[in-house]
Amino acid sequence: MVEPATDTHAATKVVPLLKDELDIVIPTIRNLDFLEMWRPFFQPYHLIIVQDGDPSKTITVPDGFDYELYNRNDINRILGPKASCISFKDSACRCFGYMVSKKKYIFTIDDDCFVAKDPSGKPINALEQHIKNLLSPSTPFFFNTLYDPYREGADFVRGYPFSLREGVHTAVSHGLWLNIPDYDAPTQLVKPLERNTRYVDAVLTIPKGTLFPMCGMNLAFDRELIGPAMYFGLMGDGQPIGRYDDMWAGWCTKVICDHLGLGIKTGLPYIYHSKASNPFVNLRKEYKGIFWQEEIIPFFQAATLPKDCTTVQKCYIELSKQVKEKLSKVDPYFDKLADAMVTWIEAWDELNPSGASA
Amino acid sequence: MVEPATDTHAATKVVPLLKDELDIVIPTIRNLDFLEMWRPFFQPYHLIIVQDGDPSKTITVPDGFDYELYNRNDINRILGPKASCISFKDSACRCFGYMVSKKKYIFTIDDDCFVAKDPSGKPINALEQHIKNLLSPSTPFFFNTLYDPYREGADFVRGYPFSLREGVHTAVSHGLWLNIPDYDAPTQLVKPLERNTRYVDAVLTIPKGTLFPMCGMNLAFDRELIGPAMYFGLMGDGQPIGRYDDMWAGWCTKVICDHLGLGIKTGLPYIYHSKASNPFVNLRKEYKGIFWQEEIIPFFQAATLPKDCTTVQKCYIELSKQVKEKLSKVDPYFDKLADAMVTWIEAWDELNPSGASA
Repeated sequence: MVEPATDTHAATKVVPLLKDELDIVIPTIRNLDFLEMWRPFFQPYHLIIVQDGDPSKTITVPDGFDYELYNRNDINRILGPKASCISFKDSACRCFGYMVSKKKYIFTIDDDCFVAKDPSGKPINALEQHIKNLLSPSTPFFFNTLYDPYREGADFVRGYPFSLREGVHTAVSHGLWLNIPDYDAPTQLVKPLERNTRYVDAVLTIPKGTLFPMCGMNLAFDRELIGPAMYFGLMGDGQPIGRYDDMWAGWCTKVICDHLGLGIKTGLPYIYHSKASNPFVNLRKEYKGIFWQEEIIPFFQAATLPKDCTTVQKCYIELSKQVKEKLSKVDPYFDKLADAMVTWIEAWDELNPSGASA
Repeated sequence: MVEPATDTHAATKVVPLLKDELDIVIPTIRNLDFLEMWRPFFQPYHLIIVQDGDPSKTITVPDGFDYELYNRNDINRILGPKASCISFKDSACRCFGYMVSKKKYIFTIDDDCFVAKDPSGKPINALEQHIKNLLSPSTPFFFNTLYDPYREGADFVRGYPFSLREGVHTAVSHGLWLNIPDYDAPTQLVKPLERNTRYVDAVLTIPKGTLFPMCGMNLAFDRELIGPAMYFGLMGDGQPIGRYDDMWAGWCTKVICDHLGLGIKTGLPYIYHSKASNPFVNLRKEYKGIFWQEEIIPFFQAATLPKDCTTVQKCYIELSKQVKEKLSKVDPYFDKLADAMVTWIEAWDELNPSGASA
């Protein structure tokens, strides 16, 4: 049995790394009491809260946090007709927070995620580990058997080419979950009691050319390097699918990172995921994705981007064209999604004119 | 500080899996006292000891072990002129043991490797973990963020394609090392005091298309699936290079596994690696490899095998041709090595007529 940390306030002195360069994005439909446990780690940072669902509902944020909150009315007001690309009644709405942020780094976390403990019982400062992951290079071109060679006490092993030891910039840090694992509805149904109790003390780069299932529950990334690829798609209200928002972002992001020579790390940090979502509801949201992904994944595995796609925006627009061309035959939904991908980039560039795709 | 297990005899009852289907191959130049600590785990198995160096020297094996021992005279007698493909004065000679084995599985270990302890202090039965790795499938086509999905308490995460959940046969299990990490000479020289104390409780499949540095210190494989690719090359006496025997085998094996749809796992089990080899001696052996690998690795990354290469032997012969064609310009050594690769396959087929390449 794993338990969350309950006495995080006793955490030894926290040095808030990148305090003025990182926003924490939280999508929610409820009061943010979960922040209480994260206080020693999150309070120095600015929060961007994206309120999903009924905008007339008031979301309570514990005292002392510095935050801005956007509900659906705000999103509509800020984006106008382009708000159509932001999902409603789905945590995919979180990507609006990535767009309005003005910081270099984003950490996003779900409101049912608590502070996990390492094997010694110490509360894990997840954000600090994400920042370490992002600030050290990745090694996508060759596998290092002792995992992240930049961690203390580790290095490149014998046989690792010296020309690759500088590594590349890390664009994404994908963290994991103790307690409730991130399973799909069928697996939830089959294994209702399974809990993740295994603390794997590793961070590793996902090799170039390999796709992975990116979970948005505990995720950090470099907005300047990869932000425009972190679109969480059209999910939830009015859409035929849910729970594939982060997957979609992960597939697109990985293909673009591979093309641009950027790295994605997975592993540490763990958060404590408190509560399994309803598998019956999940099944309804997922079932189309479960068979669509059998065609989507080969599509992304085969996708290549032309050399003149030198910015994330250009890559993303090119990918949207390929989605329209190749996936529309799977379902008309992808035609709509491809259009939304373009709208997303237009909206991104509007709100982020300095890095716009020109 | 990590310590080896010193009371392995107190290990709880060991069930020797695959007792009659696995040989343990040990290359050595000294008495095999290290087996004493491995007794509870290894004694039920048959050992193949490949004595390197002076054949007139007597190697002592602790009482009670079932073994066969081959020295250089034996190798010359058994292989005749084809013995030229087996290295002398280098642990690369171990691959002779793979060839003479009649079993389905091989575990190979160096004689300076002791029993490691897991974080709870329990002696690790490395062989048992290797067998678990080999008997469960691999997942080379998509990355699972919770590592080996077939381990107890783990599974495929949300977004993992269902069509890939059967996995593929595992051909190789690559284990790791606590205490002395497997570093090259330059890293040994720069970090003489570095010890690996991090126990990472994970096994994972190395994705298709990704090369890795395979270390021969603590390695198991399925001889029937991949044996003929496990050639450790020409190293040591009379050769311009050493300490690249396992790397060579790893590059060839990975390319062939990728082509044939077989899996390679890395991670658990750990052994305790007791003693760093002399970095100055290592530098002399390695220095050519250190610059050659900058060309060899791109060669293997780009290597493709034609569809009609449907057996390991056919793949290996094809690879030998590509080595001759593309690497001979790096150094005439590769011309010789390419010839030795062919000799190796001829010798393999001679000793293993039932699985011969026809």
